[in-house]
Amino acid sequence: MAVVIPSEESAGIFVSQSVASSDGAALLRTCGQAGLPGHLVVHDRTRPPSPAELASIRIALLSVDVIGLSSKTKLEPELATFVDTLYAAPNLQWLQVCSAGMDRPFYAELHSRGVRLTSAAGANAKAVAQTAVAGLLALSRCIPMWIEAQGKRQWKPMRGALIPPQLEGQHAVVVGMGGIGLDIGRVLKALELRVTGVRRSPSTQPYFDRVVGFNELDSVLPDADWLVLACPLTEQTRHLIDGRRLKLMRQEARIVNVARGEVIDEAALIEALRNQAVAGAYLDVFEKEPLPPESPLWDLPGVLISAHSAGNSTGHQRGVINQFTENLIRFANKSALHNEWQGAAAAQS
Amino acid sequence: MAVVIPSEESAGIFVSQSVASSDGAALLRTCGQAGLPGHLVVHDRTRPPSPAELASIRIALLSVDVIGLSSKTKLEPELATFVDTLYAAPNLQWLQVCSAGMDRPFYAELHSRGVRLTSAAGANAKAVAQTAVAGLLALSRCIPMWIEAQGKRQWKPMRGALIPPQLEGQHAVVVGMGGIGLDIGRVLKALELRVTGVRRSPSTQPYFDRVVGFNELDSVLPDADWLVLACPLTEQTRHLIDGRRLKLMRQEARIVNVARGEVIDEAALIEALRNQAVAGAYLDVFEKEPLPPESPLWDLPGVLISAHSAGNSTGHQRGVINQFTENLIRFANKSALHNEWQGAAAAQS
Repeated sequence: MAVVIPSEESAGIFVSQSVASSDGAALLRTCGQAGLPGHLVVHDRTRPPSPAELASIRIALLSVDVIGLSSKTKLEPELATFVDTLYAAPNLQWLQVCSAGMDRPFYAELHSRGVRLTSAAGANAKAVAQTAVAGLLALSRCIPMWIEAQGKRQWKPMRGALIPPQLEGQHAVVVGMGGIGLDIGRVLKALELRVTGVRRSPSTQPYFDRVVGFNELDSVLPDADWLVLACPLTEQTRHLIDGRRLKLMRQEARIVNVARGEVIDEAALIEALRNQAVAGAYLDVFEKEPLPPESPLWDLPGVLISAHSAGNSTGHQRGVINQFTENLIRFANKSALHNEWQGAAAAQS
Repeated sequence: MAVVIPSEESAGIFVSQSVASSDGAALLRTCGQAGLPGHLVVHDRTRPPSPAELASIRIALLSVDVIGLSSKTKLEPELATFVDTLYAAPNLQWLQVCSAGMDRPFYAELHSRGVRLTSAAGANAKAVAQTAVAGLLALSRCIPMWIEAQGKRQWKPMRGALIPPQLEGQHAVVVGMGGIGLDIGRVLKALELRVTGVRRSPSTQPYFDRVVGFNELDSVLPDADWLVLACPLTEQTRHLIDGRRLKLMRQEARIVNVARGEVIDEAALIEALRNQAVAGAYLDVFEKEPLPPESPLWDLPGVLISAHSAGNSTGHQRGVINQFTENLIRFANKSALHNEWQGAAAAQS
């Protein structure tokens, strides 16, 4: 049910049906007020756009609803057909995506074809940070054990050997200090942990007791109770946490990964968990997603798993649309776009 | 294995074997330096103290290890024999307990016999607050659903209908503004919730957007996404949350109770959860503990249960011993004791 208002100068904006109905009118108004007459080309996975519609597309918004249940490597029909249209649109100039991470292979492909891409860094940062803290607290307070006991209607107080270690005063090392890492540090500080941040270059930062560069990671790991990964996946961060670094950590230490699965050498992590070289992990992301049913991670002790959902909340789509709207005005005004991606080769912090 | 250093003026301090070995020497040193010669009478559940030992006891410390797995109504042998000794010690003047709540029936009995009691309010406040936030975040981020899926090795992303509501900006009503309530408010504010405090008399408080008196509770409940109970059990707070007040709440609202089970009318809560008049609850405390296996709470949807363990952490016993040590100096100096309990009849805030 794609609608085209044919006009030489009208910019086609390719959006999902959900966005068209929730925000279509507002987007066209914004566009028009910014001096760029626009029309919507609405995605319909059962019917590709006509050649005229395709030719009119200059802008596209890849919203949360289009991603649906797709993983990075396995695209559901809604997303697969959306990407087909992106590839087929000869005049596409700019794609706004809904994630902070820019590691889907078709992003690089579109970028190499000259399409500008903007991430939605920050749109779900608060939700990711909340989820990281939720996972850390769940491990700290033994929530998986509560739920197991609850399923058996069993009263199992955390007394004697089950008393968990005092959380306040523990030391968290947070890797990555974008919006997500900063928010995690702030909340962990409110929970009275000692917080060390790790980023490309050392600096000072409110709520962080200390900020060190990646080159000092080895020196802070032996003193960490928690290693929280919240960095983008880059060539610098791929397998940042490998077998050697896991061996630097304390047996009582636990890991939280809301970054990307590839930031950890997953085989080395499995080995460390099996050997109780580290005490546990909350993992939202994995080297292969969906995490295969045969992965040992599913039932290793001390491991809590979520299905790449840390950033999901009803606020995410709204945040993405707000960022898109702001960028739409900038696009119309030929200003620099917010969060423009410089390609996979460019380093990220 | 009770040891008595008999001396007319030496104050007997009745403690557990665990406290005697971890802190016995330090306690006696503190005592002596404060001008009160003391000796330890060490609890041994297999052998009650001799009449001479009993007569020498003036001070007692009911530490975390003595409580063990005892509930309020069901005392394990360690605690039951400890209480027997308290009742049998004719010269007992002061008992330091390890909890913030003073609602064990034998506290009132000892108080009526003229024994002074001090609570350990604050000793586990941070752990209770952490646990309240852990439970709230677990419900907000659907951790029980993660764990259920994990048990089935099932990849179940929170997409589509499973997307949880945005947490930042939600409204939490925190009832009780002692150390626990204040800490909960502070952390929820760091998580960017709107926080209303409820206490005996309205006031202002950092981190709280608003503080109202109990008489305004009805007016804030309809706007609450979270109702967090962190007040002591008093005649004013018994069944504070009854069927009428539950009906004032929104269907999406959820309840966190780290106070005492009796603060909620449990039958009314069960009915409200069954009828989906409220969306869920994290409950650490219950009208009857251990929670009976036949309670419907165990498997009502949206309910997360822990076994009266919110305050348990390795830091608790240390905090109790620190408070006891401070009070020991005050007792020796005949100064006012910290956290002295005024009896069940006195109102608490």
